[in-house]
Amino acid sequence: MSVEVIAMGGYEEVGKNMSAVRVGDEVIIFDMGIHLDRLHIHEDTDISRMHSLDLIEKGIIPDDTLMKDVDGKVRAIVFTHGHLDHIGAVAKLAHRYGAPIIATPYTMALIESTIKGEKKFKVSNPLQSLKPGEKCQISPDITLEFINSTHSIPHAVIAALHTSEGIIVYALDFKFDNHQKISPPPDYKRLKQLGKKGVLALIVETTRATEKEEVKTHSEKVAKIVLEDVMKGPLQEKEGMIITTFSSHIERIQAISDIAKYSDRKLMLLGRSMERYCSLAESMGILKLPKNAGMYGSPKSVNKALSRAEDKREEYLLVTTGHQGEVDALLPRIANAKTQFNIQRGDNVIISAPIIPSPVNFANRNLMERRMVSSGARIYANAHVSGHAGIEDHRDFIRMLKPMHIIPAHGDLNMLGAYAELAEEEGYKLGNDVHVLRNGQAQVFNGGV
Amino acid sequence: MSVEVIAMGGYEEVGKNMSAVRVGDEVIIFDMGIHLDRLHIHEDTDISRMHSLDLIEKGIIPDDTLMKDVDGKVRAIVFTHGHLDHIGAVAKLAHRYGAPIIATPYTMALIESTIKGEKKFKVSNPLQSLKPGEKCQISPDITLEFINSTHSIPHAVIAALHTSEGIIVYALDFKFDNHQKISPPPDYKRLKQLGKKGVLALIVETTRATEKEEVKTHSEKVAKIVLEDVMKGPLQEKEGMIITTFSSHIERIQAISDIAKYSDRKLMLLGRSMERYCSLAESMGILKLPKNAGMYGSPKSVNKALSRAEDKREEYLLVTTGHQGEVDALLPRIANAKTQFNIQRGDNVIISAPIIPSPVNFANRNLMERRMVSSGARIYANAHVSGHAGIEDHRDFIRMLKPMHIIPAHGDLNMLGAYAELAEEEGYKLGNDVHVLRNGQAQVFNGGV
Amino acid sequence: MSVEVIAMGGYEEVGKNMSAVRVGDEVIIFDMGIHLDRLHIHEDTDISRMHSLDLIEKGIIPDDTLMKDVDGKVRAIVFTHGHLDHIGAVAKLAHRYGAPIIATPYTMALIESTIKGEKKFKVSNPLQSLKPGEKCQISPDITLEFINSTHSIPHAVIAALHTSEGIIVYALDFKFDNHQKISPPPDYKRLKQLGKKGVLALIVETTRATEKEEVKTHSEKVAKIVLEDVMKGPLQEKEGMIITTFSSHIERIQAISDIAKYSDRKLMLLGRSMERYCSLAESMGILKLPKNAGMYGSPKSVNKALSRAEDKREEYLLVTTGHQGEVDALLPRIANAKTQFNIQRGDNVIISAPIIPSPVNFANRNLMERRMVSSGARIYANAHVSGHAGIEDHRDFIRMLKPMHIIPAHGDLNMLGAYAELAEEEGYKLGNDVHVLRNGQAQVFNGGV
Amino acid sequence: MSVEVIAMGGYEEVGKNMSAVRVGDEVIIFDMGIHLDRLHIHEDTDISRMHSLDLIEKGIIPDDTLMKDVDGKVRAIVFTHGHLDHIGAVAKLAHRYGAPIIATPYTMALIESTIKGEKKFKVSNPLQSLKPGEKCQISPDITLEFINSTHSIPHAVIAALHTSEGIIVYALDFKFDNHQKISPPPDYKRLKQLGKKGVLALIVETTRATEKEEVKTHSEKVAKIVLEDVMKGPLQEKEGMIITTFSSHIERIQAISDIAKYSDRKLMLLGRSMERYCSLAESMGILKLPKNAGMYGSPKSVNKALSRAEDKREEYLLVTTGHQGEVDALLPRIANAKTQFNIQRGDNVIISAPIIPSPVNFANRNLMERRMVSSGARIYANAHVSGHAGIEDHRDFIRMLKPMHIIPAHGDLNMLGAYAELAEEEGYKLGNDVHVLRNGQAQVFNGGV
Repeated sequence: MSVEVIAMGGYEEVGKNMSAVRVGDEVIIFDMGIHLDRLHIHEDTDISRMHSLDLIEKGIIPDDTLMKDVDGKVRAIVFTHGHLDHIGAVAKLAHRYGAPIIATPYTMALIESTIKGEKKFKVSNPLQSLKPGEKCQISPDITLEFINSTHSIPHAVIAALHTSEGIIVYALDFKFDNHQKISPPPDYKRLKQLGKKGVLALIVETTRATEKEEVKTHSEKVAKIVLEDVMKGPLQEKEGMIITTFSSHIERIQAISDIAKYSDRKLMLLGRSMERYCSLAESMGILKLPKNAGMYGSPKSVNKALSRAEDKREEYLLVTTGHQGEVDALLPRIANAKTQFNIQRGDNVIISAPIIPSPVNFANRNLMERRMVSSGARIYANAHVSGHAGIEDHRDFIRMLKPMHIIPAHGDLNMLGAYAELAEEEGYKLGNDVHVLRNGQAQVFNGGV
Repeated sequence: MSVEVIAMGGYEEVGKNMSAVRVGDEVIIFDMGIHLDRLHIHEDTDISRMHSLDLIEKGIIPDDTLMKDVDGKVRAIVFTHGHLDHIGAVAKLAHRYGAPIIATPYTMALIESTIKGEKKFKVSNPLQSLKPGEKCQISPDITLEFINSTHSIPHAVIAALHTSEGIIVYALDFKFDNHQKISPPPDYKRLKQLGKKGVLALIVETTRATEKEEVKTHSEKVAKIVLEDVMKGPLQEKEGMIITTFSSHIERIQAISDIAKYSDRKLMLLGRSMERYCSLAESMGILKLPKNAGMYGSPKSVNKALSRAEDKREEYLLVTTGHQGEVDALLPRIANAKTQFNIQRGDNVIISAPIIPSPVNFANRNLMERRMVSSGARIYANAHVSGHAGIEDHRDFIRMLKPMHIIPAHGDLNMLGAYAELAEEEGYKLGNDVHVLRNGQAQVFNGGV
Repeated sequence: MSVEVIAMGGYEEVGKNMSAVRVGDEVIIFDMGIHLDRLHIHEDTDISRMHSLDLIEKGIIPDDTLMKDVDGKVRAIVFTHGHLDHIGAVAKLAHRYGAPIIATPYTMALIESTIKGEKKFKVSNPLQSLKPGEKCQISPDITLEFINSTHSIPHAVIAALHTSEGIIVYALDFKFDNHQKISPPPDYKRLKQLGKKGVLALIVETTRATEKEEVKTHSEKVAKIVLEDVMKGPLQEKEGMIITTFSSHIERIQAISDIAKYSDRKLMLLGRSMERYCSLAESMGILKLPKNAGMYGSPKSVNKALSRAEDKREEYLLVTTGHQGEVDALLPRIANAKTQFNIQRGDNVIISAPIIPSPVNFANRNLMERRMVSSGARIYANAHVSGHAGIEDHRDFIRMLKPMHIIPAHGDLNMLGAYAELAEEEGYKLGNDVHVLRNGQAQVFNGGV
Repeated sequence: MSVEVIAMGGYEEVGKNMSAVRVGDEVIIFDMGIHLDRLHIHEDTDISRMHSLDLIEKGIIPDDTLMKDVDGKVRAIVFTHGHLDHIGAVAKLAHRYGAPIIATPYTMALIESTIKGEKKFKVSNPLQSLKPGEKCQISPDITLEFINSTHSIPHAVIAALHTSEGIIVYALDFKFDNHQKISPPPDYKRLKQLGKKGVLALIVETTRATEKEEVKTHSEKVAKIVLEDVMKGPLQEKEGMIITTFSSHIERIQAISDIAKYSDRKLMLLGRSMERYCSLAESMGILKLPKNAGMYGSPKSVNKALSRAEDKREEYLLVTTGHQGEVDALLPRIANAKTQFNIQRGDNVIISAPIIPSPVNFANRNLMERRMVSSGARIYANAHVSGHAGIEDHRDFIRMLKPMHIIPAHGDLNMLGAYAELAEEEGYKLGNDVHVLRNGQAQVFNGGV
């Protein structure tokens, strides 16, 4: 029985991830993401009303039209975590396949919310929640297992497909973090067991494959220590404090909330997506906020909250969206004096996020920071650690799984190539057992572990 | 008699240059420029209607308020070339001083045009044209000399003030180019003579002081060879060709015009500032265009011309503004499908300009190029050489002039510091005879060469 | 009474630090360091037998000849920590001054050891130990205080001179680390008190002033977490493990020793300087090693130890010198197969040190790493955090001390300039109250806080 | 009839190039180079006495052992230019194949010289000279054509194999230079003809595929203008002048010789390889030196010449080896005061070569330059242009040849990948018609243009 890995998106870019695995005549799809960067080129695009074919043509969502040539039936659509470059196209593409959607609970909650916001298509696939560490049988021949893992969003897992031809592992995205508060450490023991049972193929992220400095990605515990050292003093002063981070980074927001307790400040979580990700996480018991914390998502409630904070800035800790300086997000609007809260001398602004490298982001961040500095704010940038495995983590991962074949994903050619070189250091050879695919290409294995 | 150099602008940035030299109780002002980068932060600014004090506060023009504390009378306002960071604030500041404006003919033509466009202030200082190589007596004690030099705009000179205390040389901006078509080589012989007579102080640009790769700046002849190699082939194909460069870079535009003769294409110079700089240059006999060349400045005439070129693209060579991708300039508008001329497969776009390093420019250029590439254009970027002296040119300059004191200018602290280190290699010492000033500071010399 | 700061070394480079402060007619000297990088140019130099004048001429030690023009008597020579770029020239220069040497206990132990090794000069200045937090009266008018601080060596302090003209603070080198095991956090409270009493001048290090990424320097606790994550797994495998770090970095070595306890491995501290710094630290109760740890300094004992480890590599954790790949140091010699211990497949090599940026170090490290990799080792580089304050730490420091004047030190012009720009953000102005000195220059203050 | 391209060396590095093309059962080998960088790791290696198997194991020469599995007979060994990374292993490998060696005249002269220097093997293959523009029949089915091209050594060609399955083009290394003095411009017309006839596969260099700045490589004419601007002045002063460049870069040496005529200085070509490459080129009429020029290769004659130049430095222009600062080469020895010629204040040193990027080279160059500067020399570095095609040159090349398949070579994975992305912009797709091979892999085509 042949096995095929089909690359649909994320093999030429960071964004719009989508892959499929065909085992005999059964197909499992992994991820349906969007490519945010592409939206910059097509400025006026309102995704929620657009047809998938238009979005495919503009490069915003994966091109799954090649699925019609795949000789098999889709049995499941699997999502291993809830970031937009992995789930953002679900409402545009999932309805084409009659198969159930399988995801961890927090991921599923985000998927449901995405489906609700869609205006063009109606997605009515069955939704099936699967917890980290659990398995479910997809067909007589295929069992899906979710192995507990860590990333920068809760409930991120590594997926394993158990088949008669061997195990196929899908590992987009992960880091090896042994010190998170919300998520337990990755299940290394289970990964090693899979390695012993026989992994036919590993599909793996490569986000930091070109990064030679921080070779093992720092733990979130490091981010927490850094934030603590930055925030502790100013929290106790009579000054304003704003912190911005990824809305979906619940572990980080939990750390911020915990650090806030060194003072009497009340937490305000501000911005539409901040409210969305955090309220879901809180309602599921993932995020634990103090009672006096508030969440404000609608423009109106954000305005009110900001107006309250403006006068008594020493009583609040504002947590906002807008870390990339995106023109319409909250922090850039504050920086640009377009809200009720005016940056003033003494305010502390902590940017707990990297600049996601693109010229537009560099420009927006720079402008935002310069405006706030010229209003008297003090900026602490880069209070962040990555959510993606470093090259020595990847080396460990390869040594645990000992896959027969490796397919690097989640990157441009430069990143896939860098990963391939790492694999070659571990005894693989590009073209033989490491396969660099382009979007739209497939790799067939003839099984037999 | 004491001599004082007063730094008003351009000592903490590249932009808004303005310096003054006081000799006894007589003062000569050099340059009144604007800081274009600052406009990005204050988006909606319309300079032509703004008061100078507002512009000073926003950091857009030099702060000359400290001139009121200078114990002397302004005898002349001197401009050594016509770029906006040197003349752009003339209409906001010159009227405060009763002194005549002195500049080379092309520079003066640009100054007059700037004054005409001003809506807030009325500048009625006398205008006095002085050619490269000429001198004029400014007061019984002070003679101004314009030494022929080269830069990226015609009629750029190095100014020398002859005083009883020694010569003061003002050298913003220049390169040593021995192979320009329009401008003869710098007058090295005269510079060496000044060095022998005794230079008390040199005020000098530092734009490329941190650049360690191209240590002697390449000649414009190199740019011409590069452009020729890029353009010659495609000019003869039936494809579109657009080239964008600095509107004021008449030497470059002359080269483009000359290269165009390898084909039968007609030259179209397009865009408001392109028309402004080129028509002035042509009317003064500096730029020599073929008879069938056209210039189009007003939006209406640009549209018409583009519409004509759209259908017969193989008959034209378009020269446009917009090399930085500035949102409202012509080439970005073409890239964004907002004109009658639509980029199509086969079009050649040559960007004969560097990215002026700022995050906004990197973002704009990137967006512009990606849009054109996605429409099928071929882009040749970086077909350019700098107009500023390299570090070995500066070393030569110091050895020619042997100044007693050096004041680096036209840069941020990093650039002024890099120049100071170069000067130290030549035997000077920072703090002793190399003086790093900040905007608003002054350096007094007690003469006596 | 006038106060003067005299720059003798470390104002044009990182290395050979030496400054003096004259208060009226009394002089305090701070530091007498060597410039290691300069030795690369003069290969065959044996310092211990060379005369100070030769070393001054070659730029290896500070030029203190200008002290003869200083109108005052040297009352003390003060060392604030024990790194070679601060104490390395003590044996060449201290005897010229009759004054006592004052230093913290660990620093003093290192000074004594340096003096003993000297073959050319005889240093017999009185030695006076002063603990962090203690004061001593140097003259009727001057009291020296050692404020507890943190760096990458134990017993690092910030020095304060209390004078009738105000306090002069000497802060080379420090970081703000709240989580070290050996050294308690810096005495922020005392620093703020000094700020209130009135600081006339701050002489301050600038090592990381150009670093814009990690704006508050990470704590050693971060290094420990990183090392733990790297080492914990492999420690329990049957593989070799070598770690290299700065011999003087006792905090780090303590962390390594603590992490080693996750296994039964015995610690071997190897190399001449490793033995020197660690045995001193252990004998003073600063470093606490397990009983079965061994230290091997002489070539012979190193060889024996390595030969023992070669056969039973899974029983040892080797800690060696040679992190820069310096040709004659231990780890490069191991890499180059010049010892009894041969790198083999499976060995883990952890480099807990950065590359100190110089072309020779980049080359040596690269060669060393490639050789070990080609023998089968796995390298973890960059398991390190800096020992120097980041720019936001410096901002905090300025806000605590509120000095009237600042003199940046411990860097080249680029670094001093970057610090000056930071100070300007805090309201200072270069040339007015921030003073960039070159080696051999002095700055006079007329006191009066 | 199937066609196969076999990658033996240069597909994972810049160095040790070797490829083979099998057409049916006939094989043509291209190049047999050495990897100079690898020698740094194995310091004491004396190549001339070593066996090829040892050299293969150390990665210094290509691994051709896989040729024994290739099902065909070697008909020719073809060299397209004479650099060491293309011909350096000829004496170690060629004797294993009974086939004739084919090369252009200057290349052949260098090959003969290499064979003569070999001490281990005896190479007695027939040698067959073929001029640029000429063809020769290799077998009834295969004709080899040498198309005139340009590079940084004379007689560089692009090879075309005419076969019944289409043309196979081998283009390592080339640039498109229309303005060389010695070599006429590349034969673009012929390349376009080949494109029309049908190119089955293109094997192409990728040296500058990652270089996004200089997108069309500058002509040697640019290097000449730069050198002229640098040298002209100092040549007429009474100062020393040394210039160093690649010994094999006859075009550059010709330019230097021509520029020297602005003065009365006598040219001295110094160093073993300088003498070797230049005397061959002069004897073949390629290099034209003035009568009073001298060449000095042996240590003794170099010493004598330098001793003569030491006293009358203003009468000579020294051209030396050692541009990378390699410890034993001439210029570093001069810098290190190990010859009779001592660098002194006023000497001009022009480095007409880039730093070939490797940590060892950066260190050696840095050390060499610092030593000369500290002796008073003035250094002009980077007076150089590349000999390799830029990405827009490659785009032109692809459009001329329109190959069915492309195999990027002469680079590491990063470079091959960057070229593949360029090819994708031109409509190819990696894995379909662009093939990234690793050393030891082969690609089979089933012909049929």
